[in-house]
Amino acid sequence: MHIFYSDAHRAHAGQFEFFRGEKVPCFEKPERADFVLKAVQAAGIGPVLPASEVSMAPLSRVHAPRYLAFLERAWERWTALGNRTDAIPSVWPIRGFRSDVEPDNFQAQLGMYSFDSGTPFTAGSWQAALSGAQLALSAQAHVAAGARAAFSLARPPGHHAGPDFFGGYCFINNAAVAAQAAIDQGAQRVSILDVDYHHGNGTQSIFYDRADVQFLSLHGDPRTEYPFYLGHADELGAGAGLGFNHNYPLPAGCTNERWFDALSQACSQVQAYAPELLIISLGVDTYVGDPISKFRLDKPEYRRLGAAIAALRRPTLFILEGGYAVAEIGENVAAVLTGFEHG
Amino acid sequence: MHIFYSDAHRAHAGQFEFFRGEKVPCFEKPERADFVLKAVQAAGIGPVLPASEVSMAPLSRVHAPRYLAFLERAWERWTALGNRTDAIPSVWPIRGFRSDVEPDNFQAQLGMYSFDSGTPFTAGSWQAALSGAQLALSAQAHVAAGARAAFSLARPPGHHAGPDFFGGYCFINNAAVAAQAAIDQGAQRVSILDVDYHHGNGTQSIFYDRADVQFLSLHGDPRTEYPFYLGHADELGAGAGLGFNHNYPLPAGCTNERWFDALSQACSQVQAYAPELLIISLGVDTYVGDPISKFRLDKPEYRRLGAAIAALRRPTLFILEGGYAVAEIGENVAAVLTGFEHG
Repeated sequence: MHIFYSDAHRAHAGQFEFFRGEKVPCFEKPERADFVLKAVQAAGIGPVLPASEVSMAPLSRVHAPRYLAFLERAWERWTALGNRTDAIPSVWPIRGFRSDVEPDNFQAQLGMYSFDSGTPFTAGSWQAALSGAQLALSAQAHVAAGARAAFSLARPPGHHAGPDFFGGYCFINNAAVAAQAAIDQGAQRVSILDVDYHHGNGTQSIFYDRADVQFLSLHGDPRTEYPFYLGHADELGAGAGLGFNHNYPLPAGCTNERWFDALSQACSQVQAYAPELLIISLGVDTYVGDPISKFRLDKPEYRRLGAAIAALRRPTLFILEGGYAVAEIGENVAAVLTGFEHG
Repeated sequence: MHIFYSDAHRAHAGQFEFFRGEKVPCFEKPERADFVLKAVQAAGIGPVLPASEVSMAPLSRVHAPRYLAFLERAWERWTALGNRTDAIPSVWPIRGFRSDVEPDNFQAQLGMYSFDSGTPFTAGSWQAALSGAQLALSAQAHVAAGARAAFSLARPPGHHAGPDFFGGYCFINNAAVAAQAAIDQGAQRVSILDVDYHHGNGTQSIFYDRADVQFLSLHGDPRTEYPFYLGHADELGAGAGLGFNHNYPLPAGCTNERWFDALSQACSQVQAYAPELLIISLGVDTYVGDPISKFRLDKPEYRRLGAAIAALRRPTLFILEGGYAVAEIGENVAAVLTGFEHG
């Protein structure tokens, strides 16, 4: 399958993040994409292509325009205030606080549009995120033109970015943008299957009240695992979207068989929905060696995962999400794609 | 008037806070109370008394029991996780995230119950906050027993603490607890007039839908001034509380006359409401020399403020809130109380 990639991701290179209360070097770093690129090339997955000319219109259909406007100008405003470090939120609107009035203050806006202090906004965050969205849209266009599958290899990831918030290393929701593009082009049903260790709280939030995009996520139980607060099994969608949101929270320490049992349930839901496009939010931080996650999937399981996705027999778009064991992230991503190609 | 004070405040001494994106030594520190105590004693305001035996029941009528339970055990749990620094939130539930399910994870709970990273939870936060509530209740009991006024001299402050969140250096809302005690003892109407530089977002949130506690706040405009998100003039209360919430947002740089114009409007509302008890959330960070605030009130204005409060001729309870120009905070507080005594 074709791989869509750009060096533009390098523009986003955070200095520090806050992790479990401590200031630590960023886990989400440029080397991640390097490892994946090298591994998919070594595995002979397919040609590596740059982004194509695509309409960026879907962005403002899944994200609030005022949120995008904030991100676009954030670095310029932050540095104009005399700051030289990355921007990290320090105050936020908790329950009952207003979000209908956008404050003028930069820190107030930063906190209004985010849910953690682990996602530094850097000099190149906007450009890198925009490039990732363009790559996702390019891959979607390639599949829409008839390809069986495509892989968008970008960072920062996207599945934690919601209608009007960033967090979890994500600013623009690439999977949501690609799904929206397919809908805008006439698709009636798109499924997003999120296999990242962390719940795709952004994607769920974007499509929670919609029936045209089915969302399914396997992830660490939000009672104990980041990003918390969303991802419980009883979140089924709302309004027109009721019945189109499926969460499979799994306990820390979850091993191969239990994980694949949940995957099997999710795949049954996808089959029943019969989407015209299947988008995989492909995080491989489910790997036993991941430094910040707690599932115990072994290497051979990634090829098995690819085969299970192939068995759904849908035009399929892979979007890179998380995975932080940098030495193995590439191999595991390549294994999923290889398993798919041979499935 | 009697001054209620305890050394217990010293147990809360944070190491660092995050202020405008930078890690800085805490502004809210034990020396604040020392300066105030020294100044009110030098001014001969009245005898300094310890807390009396009071029922703490009002706490769980203004704060959610699960929030109080979290605070009570937070330090023990945080240190049991191996931490040795103060606890600071790093992830929080933004719009659309759930707060109905309390996560098991400590960091998730910490973020669920807070709105900023400027309020370190320390070894002694709970004990100091509890002592402050007890002092406020002692002062309230003294006024209920017939005194014209009393002053509760405690820290950390309280007016940013809401039904189930801390922030802005506040954990328990002392003014709200005292108001609730008065209501529980049979009062029909209590007014809380908040003259701190920062909007009393916690107090507003606690009483927003209630008619038995009128809330009035003069503060920096939330569009530009911390704590943001609440404190706009159009927040008038909701349901039964509609018409009993009054905000007077004022621009950075606000000088004496404009501030007293707003005070005059607030006092008219208090007069019309005719409360049986008037509680003053007494912050003096409106002072021109305050290091983190932007009003320009001069020293003589604090005595004038005290006289204006006295002119309302209500049993009056002063509760210490903010004020960070440590050298002058004591003098300005003493000036308010002197102005009141002579008013």
